[in-house]
Amino acid sequence: MRGPQITGLAATLPSTVPFVGPEAQERASGRAFVARLGANENAFGPSEATLEAMRAAAAEVWKYGDPENHDLKWALAEFHHLAVDRIVVGEGIDALLGDLVRLFVAPGDPVVTSAGAYPTFNYHATGFGGVINFVPYRNDHEDWEGLAEKAKSVGAKLVYLANPDNPMGTLLPPAAIIQMLEHLPDQTLLILDEAYGEFASSDHLLPMDFEHPNLIRMRTFSKAYGMAGARVGYAVGPAQIIGAFDKIRNHFGVNLVAQRGALAALKDQDHLQAVLHKNAAAKDRIAQIGQQNNLLALPSATNFVCLDCSGLGVDAAQILSALSDVGIFIRMPFVAPQNRCLRISTGPDAALDLLGAALPDAIKVATARTQK
Amino acid sequence: MRGPQITGLAATLPSTVPFVGPEAQERASGRAFVARLGANENAFGPSEATLEAMRAAAAEVWKYGDPENHDLKWALAEFHHLAVDRIVVGEGIDALLGDLVRLFVAPGDPVVTSAGAYPTFNYHATGFGGVINFVPYRNDHEDWEGLAEKAKSVGAKLVYLANPDNPMGTLLPPAAIIQMLEHLPDQTLLILDEAYGEFASSDHLLPMDFEHPNLIRMRTFSKAYGMAGARVGYAVGPAQIIGAFDKIRNHFGVNLVAQRGALAALKDQDHLQAVLHKNAAAKDRIAQIGQQNNLLALPSATNFVCLDCSGLGVDAAQILSALSDVGIFIRMPFVAPQNRCLRISTGPDAALDLLGAALPDAIKVATARTQK
Repeated sequence: MRGPQITGLAATLPSTVPFVGPEAQERASGRAFVARLGANENAFGPSEATLEAMRAAAAEVWKYGDPENHDLKWALAEFHHLAVDRIVVGEGIDALLGDLVRLFVAPGDPVVTSAGAYPTFNYHATGFGGVINFVPYRNDHEDWEGLAEKAKSVGAKLVYLANPDNPMGTLLPPAAIIQMLEHLPDQTLLILDEAYGEFASSDHLLPMDFEHPNLIRMRTFSKAYGMAGARVGYAVGPAQIIGAFDKIRNHFGVNLVAQRGALAALKDQDHLQAVLHKNAAAKDRIAQIGQQNNLLALPSATNFVCLDCSGLGVDAAQILSALSDVGIFIRMPFVAPQNRCLRISTGPDAALDLLGAALPDAIKVATARTQK
Repeated sequence: MRGPQITGLAATLPSTVPFVGPEAQERASGRAFVARLGANENAFGPSEATLEAMRAAAAEVWKYGDPENHDLKWALAEFHHLAVDRIVVGEGIDALLGDLVRLFVAPGDPVVTSAGAYPTFNYHATGFGGVINFVPYRNDHEDWEGLAEKAKSVGAKLVYLANPDNPMGTLLPPAAIIQMLEHLPDQTLLILDEAYGEFASSDHLLPMDFEHPNLIRMRTFSKAYGMAGARVGYAVGPAQIIGAFDKIRNHFGVNLVAQRGALAALKDQDHLQAVLHKNAAAKDRIAQIGQQNNLLALPSATNFVCLDCSGLGVDAAQILSALSDVGIFIRMPFVAPQNRCLRISTGPDAALDLLGAALPDAIKVATARTQK
C-alpha cells in the first residue's frame, strides 16, 4: 500500500454507523416522514424560556463557548446537591461515552454490555480496541446479575447499563443498582446511562448525590428537556474520574447557544413537569393504539413504548417497514427476543393520530409479506 | 491502587488544557473584560440571515441534527466545486483534528509541527500517544522546508501546518505548499489548517479543488463566518481518508441549530465580504495603535495582528498582563522568539478604542515591572 495509512486499529473498524438518521431515510425515499416517532426525541420540545435564551444567545455565537461550561456545571451541582468536581459537561452522552471509553479501554481490554443495548457504547468500545462481552436481557430487563457476573469473569474495565433501559423501556430499582455495585469487581467501572432518568419517578432512581467509587452516571438535555439537537449531556462520578476527562475532552466542544439553553431548561422545572405529564398521556395513547391492534404494550419508564408483535405472528420488522412506507418513522430493537417489538417514541396527538390511522393497514401489509 | 484505573496512556497525560478561556480569567479576577480581543473570534459576527436561520431553527432543537450533515456538506461541495465524498463536517476543527490524530497516530508514532504553533494539535497528538517533533519558525513563518525535512527524518505519520499561520499571522504561498508536498515522504499526511483561510485572498491559497493524496485541509465557520460558539468545521481531503472519519466520529455531534446557521452563512457571501473589509480596516487600526506606541505590526493574513514589543525592551507578557488588569483580553505566542509579540484580534472600533486608550499606560506599567 502507498500513501498515508491509518492505524492498525482504525483499519479494523467497520464503516458502519451506530444509527442511520431519519433524514437519510427521507432522502432515500424522496419523501419526508409525516410522524417522527423513532429516535426517542421529545417532540413536546423545550420551554419557551429555553427557546428565548437560545434565540438571545444567537447574537453571541461569534464567541467560543466557555470551555469549562462553568455556569451550567455550577447550576447542575446546585440542582443535584453535588460537589462541582463530580460533574463534567460534554457534547451529549455520546461524546462523554467516547471520552470515558478512551480513558479506560486500551486495545484488548474487556467491557460488558447487554446484547441489544444502546449501540453507541459498542461503537466507542470497538473504536478503542475493546473486547465486548454481551449478556442477554432477562424478561426484557437488563440482567444486572448477569452483567456483574460477566464483569467478574472477564475482569471488565467497564460495564454499561442503561436505566431506564433503551430499547425496552424497563426500569431496575435502586436496590438492584446497589446490589450490582456490590457484586462488581474492584476494578470495574459501572456506566449507568440515565438518559431517560427524568421520565422515571425520582424515587425509582438512586439519588444523584449517591456516591460510589465504581459508578459513573450519565444524564442529558436531549430527552426530557427536549434538546437533542443541542448536544449537551453530563456525567456524574468520582472526582478523580471526572477530572480525568480534562486530559482528553474537546474543551471548546459545547456550543455556546446550547450552554445557555440548557441552563434555562434546568431552571424551568415547571415545563419539565408539564412534559412529563404529556409524555405519560402519550404513552397511554400508544398502548391504546397497540391494544386496538392486538399488540401488547410493555411497561415503560421512558418516552417510548415497546409494542410486542409476537401475538400476531407477524415480523415487527415488516410492520416497521410498512409504517415507514407511509411516512411514519419508528425504530425497533436489534436483537432477539426483544426484536419482536416495535419501539415507538411519544409525541404530540397529531403524530399519534397518524400512527393510529396507519397501523391497521401496516399490519395487513406486513401479514401478507410475512406469509409470502 | 484500588478501584477503576484509567489506561496507562491516559495516566501519562497532563491535566493541562490547550487554552484557558477568557471566562475563567474573568471569574478569577471577578471582573468582566471590556474588550475581548484575545481568542481570534470575529466580533463582527455572522450575518443577520445567519442569526435568523439559527433563531428559526431553535424551535426544532428537539430533533437530533442530521448525522450526515447532508445539506451543509452538499452546499460546501457545490461552493468549493468538490465531490461530496471529499468533505467531512465536524464539531469544529478541534474535533476534526482529534479524529484525524486518532485515525493516524498509534502510541509512539512520530508527528511534526512548528514550535509554538496551534497547541490543540499537540494536545491531541499527545493524547493518542504520538511523539511530537518540533521545528522552529523561520522569520516568523512556519518553516515548510524544515517541517518536510523533519517529517522525512522521523518518518512522521502527520505534519501540521497552519496557513495562514496562528499565532504569527503570516502566509506561505501556494507554491510553497506544493513544494512541501513534493518533499514529504509517501506515508506522511499534511494537515493544512486553514482556519483563517477566508481572510487571505483566495489567489494566495491553493484552490479548494486541488487534490493530493498526502493532503487534508481544515476549514471552519468559527473565524471569518463569525460562528466560533457554534462548533462547525470541515475537512477536505482524499475520499479514502475522509471516509475513515465515519469509523470513529461522533456522528450526531454537530448541533442542529449550528448546521442551519452554517448553511445560511455560506450562502451569504456578501456578508463575508463586508466582514473582510471591516477586518482589514481593524488590522490597519491595530497597526496604527502599535505605531503610536513604538510597537511594530507584523504583516497579517488573518484576523489578528502581532505587535512586536522587542524594540521597547519590555516583556510582551508584562504588557499583556497590564492590559488584562484593565479589562483588555489579548493573547501572545508561547515560544521564543515569537513571544516578543502581542497577538491582538480584530474587533469593532469600540474595542480597539479601549485598546488604544489603555496601551500607553500598560506599556508604562510593564516597563516599570520589567526594570524591577
